[in-house]
Amino acid sequence: MAKNNLEKGRVSIIGASGYGGLQLVKLINEHPHFEIASLNGERSAGKSWNDLNPFIKIPVDKEINRSNIDDIALNSDYAILSLPNGLASQIVPSLLDKGIKVLDLSADYRFKSLDKWKDIYSNEASKYPRFDFDLCEEAIYGFSEEFSNEISKSRLIACPGCYPTSALSVLIPFLKQGLIENDGIIIDAKSGTSGGGRNPNEQLLLSECSESIKPYGVIGHRHTAEIENIASKFAGHPLYLQFTPHLVPMVRGILTTVYARLRDPGLTADDCKIVIEAFYKNQPFIDILPVGTYPATKWVKNTNKIMISIQVDKRNGRIVLMSVIDNLLKGQAGQAIQNLNLMHGLEADIGLPKITFFP
Amino acid sequence: MAKNNLEKGRVSIIGASGYGGLQLVKLINEHPHFEIASLNGERSAGKSWNDLNPFIKIPVDKEINRSNIDDIALNSDYAILSLPNGLASQIVPSLLDKGIKVLDLSADYRFKSLDKWKDIYSNEASKYPRFDFDLCEEAIYGFSEEFSNEISKSRLIACPGCYPTSALSVLIPFLKQGLIENDGIIIDAKSGTSGGGRNPNEQLLLSECSESIKPYGVIGHRHTAEIENIASKFAGHPLYLQFTPHLVPMVRGILTTVYARLRDPGLTADDCKIVIEAFYKNQPFIDILPVGTYPATKWVKNTNKIMISIQVDKRNGRIVLMSVIDNLLKGQAGQAIQNLNLMHGLEADIGLPKITFFP
Amino acid sequence: MAKNNLEKGRVSIIGASGYGGLQLVKLINEHPHFEIASLNGERSAGKSWNDLNPFIKIPVDKEINRSNIDDIALNSDYAILSLPNGLASQIVPSLLDKGIKVLDLSADYRFKSLDKWKDIYSNEASKYPRFDFDLCEEAIYGFSEEFSNEISKSRLIACPGCYPTSALSVLIPFLKQGLIENDGIIIDAKSGTSGGGRNPNEQLLLSECSESIKPYGVIGHRHTAEIENIASKFAGHPLYLQFTPHLVPMVRGILTTVYARLRDPGLTADDCKIVIEAFYKNQPFIDILPVGTYPATKWVKNTNKIMISIQVDKRNGRIVLMSVIDNLLKGQAGQAIQNLNLMHGLEADIGLPKITFFP
Amino acid sequence: MAKNNLEKGRVSIIGASGYGGLQLVKLINEHPHFEIASLNGERSAGKSWNDLNPFIKIPVDKEINRSNIDDIALNSDYAILSLPNGLASQIVPSLLDKGIKVLDLSADYRFKSLDKWKDIYSNEASKYPRFDFDLCEEAIYGFSEEFSNEISKSRLIACPGCYPTSALSVLIPFLKQGLIENDGIIIDAKSGTSGGGRNPNEQLLLSECSESIKPYGVIGHRHTAEIENIASKFAGHPLYLQFTPHLVPMVRGILTTVYARLRDPGLTADDCKIVIEAFYKNQPFIDILPVGTYPATKWVKNTNKIMISIQVDKRNGRIVLMSVIDNLLKGQAGQAIQNLNLMHGLEADIGLPKITFFP
Repeated sequence: MAKNNLEKGRVSIIGASGYGGLQLVKLINEHPHFEIASLNGERSAGKSWNDLNPFIKIPVDKEINRSNIDDIALNSDYAILSLPNGLASQIVPSLLDKGIKVLDLSADYRFKSLDKWKDIYSNEASKYPRFDFDLCEEAIYGFSEEFSNEISKSRLIACPGCYPTSALSVLIPFLKQGLIENDGIIIDAKSGTSGGGRNPNEQLLLSECSESIKPYGVIGHRHTAEIENIASKFAGHPLYLQFTPHLVPMVRGILTTVYARLRDPGLTADDCKIVIEAFYKNQPFIDILPVGTYPATKWVKNTNKIMISIQVDKRNGRIVLMSVIDNLLKGQAGQAIQNLNLMHGLEADIGLPKITFFP
Repeated sequence: MAKNNLEKGRVSIIGASGYGGLQLVKLINEHPHFEIASLNGERSAGKSWNDLNPFIKIPVDKEINRSNIDDIALNSDYAILSLPNGLASQIVPSLLDKGIKVLDLSADYRFKSLDKWKDIYSNEASKYPRFDFDLCEEAIYGFSEEFSNEISKSRLIACPGCYPTSALSVLIPFLKQGLIENDGIIIDAKSGTSGGGRNPNEQLLLSECSESIKPYGVIGHRHTAEIENIASKFAGHPLYLQFTPHLVPMVRGILTTVYARLRDPGLTADDCKIVIEAFYKNQPFIDILPVGTYPATKWVKNTNKIMISIQVDKRNGRIVLMSVIDNLLKGQAGQAIQNLNLMHGLEADIGLPKITFFP
Repeated sequence: MAKNNLEKGRVSIIGASGYGGLQLVKLINEHPHFEIASLNGERSAGKSWNDLNPFIKIPVDKEINRSNIDDIALNSDYAILSLPNGLASQIVPSLLDKGIKVLDLSADYRFKSLDKWKDIYSNEASKYPRFDFDLCEEAIYGFSEEFSNEISKSRLIACPGCYPTSALSVLIPFLKQGLIENDGIIIDAKSGTSGGGRNPNEQLLLSECSESIKPYGVIGHRHTAEIENIASKFAGHPLYLQFTPHLVPMVRGILTTVYARLRDPGLTADDCKIVIEAFYKNQPFIDILPVGTYPATKWVKNTNKIMISIQVDKRNGRIVLMSVIDNLLKGQAGQAIQNLNLMHGLEADIGLPKITFFP
Repeated sequence: MAKNNLEKGRVSIIGASGYGGLQLVKLINEHPHFEIASLNGERSAGKSWNDLNPFIKIPVDKEINRSNIDDIALNSDYAILSLPNGLASQIVPSLLDKGIKVLDLSADYRFKSLDKWKDIYSNEASKYPRFDFDLCEEAIYGFSEEFSNEISKSRLIACPGCYPTSALSVLIPFLKQGLIENDGIIIDAKSGTSGGGRNPNEQLLLSECSESIKPYGVIGHRHTAEIENIASKFAGHPLYLQFTPHLVPMVRGILTTVYARLRDPGLTADDCKIVIEAFYKNQPFIDILPVGTYPATKWVKNTNKIMISIQVDKRNGRIVLMSVIDNLLKGQAGQAIQNLNLMHGLEADIGLPKITFFP
């Protein structure tokens, strides 16, 4: 279906020193069809990449630059932005104007409605003035498995959040086919600390979060709106679901446990497994596990995989959907590369790891 | 109300080398009103306690014995059993016959109906023949906060499971007062590995479970029946709820996140906090946190506390109840000592830690 | 020997919100002979202790104050300072002038020579002007087991660093008795992350240090000078030893492995065990393990203990000395309370935990 | 220098379900020049690989076999044995007789002298009768960087232990060139728990070893003899060094800190860095870090790299050598593949990861 493009795509990474950036550098560095055009970041501007990151050395060292749009435009086909929410929107329009295709890892273009974004990200909205209503409308939500056609033709991809990727991967198939009730969906998600980023933060010190688990952002977490936004589309109706994230004492990984009610309480776990297998047929990154096999986040660590398991409680017609991802790969940088592959006319899975080193 | 008994109660611990036993040895050793009568265990019989456990030395060393009922009867007022399910039932009748009061940490007496137990614990039932219907009927479920009167007069306490303790602590107040709907309750629980015990097990190796979280026992976990059993009593109707345990890469602690629907959707989180505060008034081990403060398991590690937080989603009338405990203390050995205090005519909180070393 | 003082000593804690401070609040709060006079800290000044620290609640809540010497003097007998190096020296003289006895957890008074301190802590010396030569001379180094007499009569205690406590505990007995060569001593120490404090720091994020171990401060770590300073006294000669700290992915604990050469290569491990047992006879916090039993830091977690094991390689006359401590207790706040007990005329071990909850 | 062989080498893995086997399956599965001929193991014989290991699926599933030499001989060019010590020696002779080249991960062929092996591995020697003196003599010690010529021509490779790989990597360059004294070398090594294997073991439960570090095998660890054996060759004299392993609460990785004395105390750390850089020139898996940059095991996790840092204490002429490896890759299965590459006429680094996902 997809061709193998021989000319290497030139990719600039903006925000290279955060955890998202580190994944991107490794993935693009080892990718057969892309090369790093430039590395950009405020914090480390002017320094050598290899000096700062002896654990992710690139063959030809580069200096980290302040993000200069003109310089980036000169030598890049694509830019991947791993920046704080709000900040991305300040440079995306210029990059697009220069003909650069953009994959944005922030939340800035995940809502078709800029007003909705301003409502959800009100702090950022007050700090960064935005009028790019049209770009919000134009941007494609980069959940690769569902929107691959649109992604391949787009110049602006809003890569999904880590929690939404994990939750939507199991919700979309059942919502789209009307197999679960729209009301009463509960998403109990558990994430490693790398989801909190690399900026120093007392809450994320090993001393504070090792040997402990806690909920946070109960009720009001901003990924709730993102999940509801996409889930509602597939449900055909506005959904108000429950999303509770928890912080787990591990580095990488998200496990999402979703509870919903089957419309037809006669469906078994095996029936539901067949449904979702058919839905994700030929998707290289999605594994549906046998009924009764439950995934550990470790099984997908350092891969771009989603592993899914389904169980049904016959007593009450409730379905339990479980998915695991690596929050920094399928939940962030890996999915960006998956989308980049699609935009570049490649197979979705080129250059992306599928098997972990265990344990 | 309670007197301070000057004569020390003599307590035998049966199954001393497991994690439950280790907690009991420390707690009784340091308790002002109890002393260790004997330490019993198969695995280490004939060996010196202090040689085996240089990290929990007792002032006067004891040899670990094979559990001989006559010997135990001679020098004990109480026996605490930390044995595999089914095995406890084989010695409890004899201990009671000898006039020993028994606190059992296993599931053997947690159901009023022995047939129900045989149904849920069918493997154990086929291995250990049981006819003690009357003792099942007689035993008091040792959730200390709710059944303190019965506990203080009883000679046989079935100490609750770790997950049930955590889940029931937040469910009982709302079920009893009819504030939440009986239908659709979801319990998503997260436990450290010590809940799996000390017997070698590939699944519990650090190499396997570090840097990973996974669900297990989905739908069919045996604590589901225990929770439903007690919750149904308070609800006044049979309940069929959803309980999903998860294994977290930490040693101690359970966080339970419970989702339910309010009967009166007008109630706020603060209203619900007032309800549960009133319910647990003067309970020394229960802390209700301010709305918006969410507990970490680390906050209660090495204590007998339950910390609870409540949130309400006004959009859909759903309540989120969160509780944390130390699974080996309030979830097991600590609650046993709390019950022992009550049986001995003491205040519930004597000799039990309430404040952790943080971090 | 020591009397039990009935009047409670009033203790102010300066720097209450760091990890040292948190231990102090818990220990003094539960101590039978001391009470918290005031809690002081810049970061949280004006806030309620119990609101900020729901996991270490005190029965009568206190507001956290900016450190006002006059206020502290009014209601305190003792002040324990848990402040950054250099800062402590700016208020210790005033506290002493007001008649307050001071226990300082920083390095400011650990060297008899202020010039030496200025040499080792040159950054701090350039920031904080110091002329308190006499106080440096006067201060007693608070390694409780060795200097209990001086400590009990002193008004200014320089509490030892965590690594020095661990290393000196095994070096002093052998150096003092001339059993090991002064030359060629190697100290390979391993610490949990709480030794790095509570201030946000990228290096101490769980994401960075979990699943990893690394050396740091090789050759130049400032505790080298502190260890050499005290060790030289007991050796009777200046020592230049090798000290290498390592960061271990755990919260609490230091394991120190010391390598030295026996002067008499005929000594066995058992001989050496007898030597150190005699040296530490009747010391309540020191456990010498049987030869062949090696201590885990977990064995002393949340206690004020030092556990020591000794091994000898007959092939080359080398001795291996191993000690474990809880870096925040015996390595910091616990030892401060041990010294406070001595200063108040109490037994050294009152109010200090000796047995851990395992695991 | 090396050619790229187009015919795929057929490799049987014996002991496929342990941690070593899991690495081998992944590495060979993804290797461009090898394919898995058969998967062998006692524990899981008769079962499907992909059913048992959904996290390391192979494209064409295989049944796990009992190790039948004739079957293996039919379809294999190479056999890699990941078996307990002693057991390997029972099948290696037959494999070689059938013309299969063997890479053995056990200690069975690491000593030229079988008598020496019987001395060090006396328990295994009493269980498994051995008379293969000639094979011990013939086998090549598979430290790839030093013995690549011999390895490329050999039919039997004794792959080094994990600790020896880490320690020898820094010792060989300095011993061979006579830059450090032979006497007084100290190796303080720290390993993750996967070094202890996958068999259930109380000591390796997360509950036991999380939040803790401890020494083990002090003085007598069997890798001491292996290190001394090789180090003595390069020193030209028998060495008796000190080796102390420690168990670290992490899954993968070894950090080794080596202390030695420079023959010429005038050498600086930078001088020594130049020496080792020259020694390892063009070695694709060895990185010498800048002086003052210290490696974390995380930097090499999931790679076949060795990262090395060197420091010198000018005060006493002592050198500190630090190296980190992934114990399951460069310390075990990765180095086996590196050797396999050499035996197959390939570049050493084909199919072996060099860059980690960080964090």
